[in-house]
Amino acid sequence: MTSFGYRRLDEKFLIEYIKATPSLSSKLGNQFDDLKIKEVGDSNLNFVFIVVGSDGSVVIKQALPYIHCRGESWPMTKERAYFEQRALIEHGRLCPDHVPEVYHFDRDMSLIGMRYLEPPHIILRKGLIAGIEYPLLAEHMSEYMTRTLFCTSLIYPNGFSLMLHAVAEFCGNVELCRLTEQVVFSDPYKVSQYNRCTSPYLDRDAEAVQEDNILKLEVAELKSIFCERAQALIHGDLHTGSIMVTHDSTQVIDPEFAFYGPMGFDVGAFLGNLILAFFAQDGHVDQGNDRKFFKFQFRENLWALFYDLVSFPPPAKILFIKEMKRTLQYKQPPLETTEITPTKTPKSTEKSPQKTIITNKSRASKQSPTQTLPLEKNKTNREK
Amino acid sequence: MTSFGYRRLDEKFLIEYIKATPSLSSKLGNQFDDLKIKEVGDSNLNFVFIVVGSDGSVVIKQALPYIHCRGESWPMTKERAYFEQRALIEHGRLCPDHVPEVYHFDRDMSLIGMRYLEPPHIILRKGLIAGIEYPLLAEHMSEYMTRTLFCTSLIYPNGFSLMLHAVAEFCGNVELCRLTEQVVFSDPYKVSQYNRCTSPYLDRDAEAVQEDNILKLEVAELKSIFCERAQALIHGDLHTGSIMVTHDSTQVIDPEFAFYGPMGFDVGAFLGNLILAFFAQDGHVDQGNDRKFFKFQFRENLWALFYDLVSFPPPAKILFIKEMKRTLQYKQPPLETTEITPTKTPKSTEKSPQKTIITNKSRASKQSPTQTLPLEKNKTNREK
Repeated sequence: MTSFGYRRLDEKFLIEYIKATPSLSSKLGNQFDDLKIKEVGDSNLNFVFIVVGSDGSVVIKQALPYIHCRGESWPMTKERAYFEQRALIEHGRLCPDHVPEVYHFDRDMSLIGMRYLEPPHIILRKGLIAGIEYPLLAEHMSEYMTRTLFCTSLIYPNGFSLMLHAVAEFCGNVELCRLTEQVVFSDPYKVSQYNRCTSPYLDRDAEAVQEDNILKLEVAELKSIFCERAQALIHGDLHTGSIMVTHDSTQVIDPEFAFYGPMGFDVGAFLGNLILAFFAQDGHVDQGNDRKFFKFQFRENLWALFYDLVSFPPPAKILFIKEMKRTLQYKQPPLETTEITPTKTPKSTEKSPQKTIITNKSRASKQSPTQTLPLEKNKTNREK
Repeated sequence: MTSFGYRRLDEKFLIEYIKATPSLSSKLGNQFDDLKIKEVGDSNLNFVFIVVGSDGSVVIKQALPYIHCRGESWPMTKERAYFEQRALIEHGRLCPDHVPEVYHFDRDMSLIGMRYLEPPHIILRKGLIAGIEYPLLAEHMSEYMTRTLFCTSLIYPNGFSLMLHAVAEFCGNVELCRLTEQVVFSDPYKVSQYNRCTSPYLDRDAEAVQEDNILKLEVAELKSIFCERAQALIHGDLHTGSIMVTHDSTQVIDPEFAFYGPMGFDVGAFLGNLILAFFAQDGHVDQGNDRKFFKFQFRENLWALFYDLVSFPPPAKILFIKEMKRTLQYKQPPLETTEITPTKTPKSTEKSPQKTIITNKSRASKQSPTQTLPLEKNKTNREK
């Protein structure tokens, strides 16, 4: 393919580009007559085109050299596309069931061609807001995190030398690492022009966070771990908006923040997002659905996920429990908690065979009767 | 200067090289008639030439592309000279009093030209074996570690982006990092052809180490921190053989193992070497000197060093205490210990003014009466 240099995509140029690129045109069966093209990116950060033909489909994603945020434009390296495809390929090799395949990458164009996740795939966040149940989500995400984090860490026999080479390469994703450091570990705890909360309802809560010195010390410790600990090739932005789902498929996308960081950052981001989704359910109650059953099942699945993660082989297990404890501030069993009946099998296992390392039966037998879910405490506090 | 490519130094070529290199010839006042040249390297790893003329002096160090060890030759990148001079320059900028100045670097030749540490400078290890007292050592080394470690870490306001660039660069010193990982964190705990102990006297002790599974788990945790935590630009080989001393000068040399690693590795290596030297004193007792007074002073200075290190500004202090506790396995006060009188001022402070952040007076007042030195326990055990 001839190099185009960097040029912004539009529909016309897109077709020209695909025709000139065998790894993309072959995915459409080299049929270009009745292509349907839809731009679905937010165009604040990336262009994303879905291209569907009679004989196949493809997604084309192009990074823009800036991000828009609240009307302002920040310059942002389009080199992030390079690290995104590096992570997609590396994670895809380790966990092909849950990472979409990359067909093509063009560094000059900051362009990735990849598998189209066809309907009914939707963004997990939207599904959770709609109250849709995903019985395999816990199992799939624990498999994804086990494979991508465990197998890129030193616990897996990759060797220190190979890892140092990879660490050095991903240090190049410095702008996006710095952005995470700022928006996750710095800005929320001080007055910053980029902070946003649902004003005026949450103003007092936001202030309370900014006045909590004990919290800030804990966050400083987490920030230091985020910045310093090159433990595994992490996704770096693993929230419910980076996951596409159907009833039986879970696909992790958008790893443009990937670098060698602490495993706990991915694990904590995902669990934290689920916890937020859990508490948000009360806001989605309508006359037909009080969401109580959904919340109950959700909680069981969250617990199952936690258990799947801690059922890693022993060294990884120790590490994961440590990281998760740190991330969730789950250092001591909370005092006022409601016990989760440990013998109840999560619904997911009724619907599908378990592929994970320990069964739910062994899970249940490993739970001590005093084990509790910290969620319950918060829920009680909220409902007071 | 004309590039020579890589060529091994000998006296004749050395003079030719210096004459062609203004940054070196100027240090000799451009006088080459009565140069005295002495090769002092072990020639297993590096050539080191001391060049003294009537108007000045210089040391020339050249890395060889292998290391000799027990008759065998391992290939070893001569690129380590690049990282050595990078660390000398960076640490020298932060702590010019305790790092010799670099005059010249030639990457093709793997050659560093630097300040000659003239007599009576000797290697600290030799001084300690001879029972020589270094009253300023604790103060100087705490200053060196404070400046080089604190100021290359994120606690110092360098910014995350700059640090990631430096981390990526020093990941290039991968061969020497891997060597440390092998000879410090792996080989001693298993049967390995490169292990050596004073056989047969220490055979049983060596076996005991290799059979101690609890110890191996702890070491695995330390190894993971060494490999993963890019906390500061560490020296990487800070034993008493990497330090040259006189009564009032302390100079840290040979940082060829430098990379971004955990501060505790430098702090622990140095303190650990001092502890070894302390216990080795009994082996150096002769009729004229029972070394008791030396050991007493040495212990006091070690304690002073520990205190100097923990008198960093608060965030660094927390971090250092944590790292040192980890390194020294100093988790709980040992049960059977002899108390160190906390109000006794260390001898070093009687001889020289204190430059450190807190005075010995405030130090003493901060010590609780139950604070003890774990050394004492070991000593008691040994003497039983």
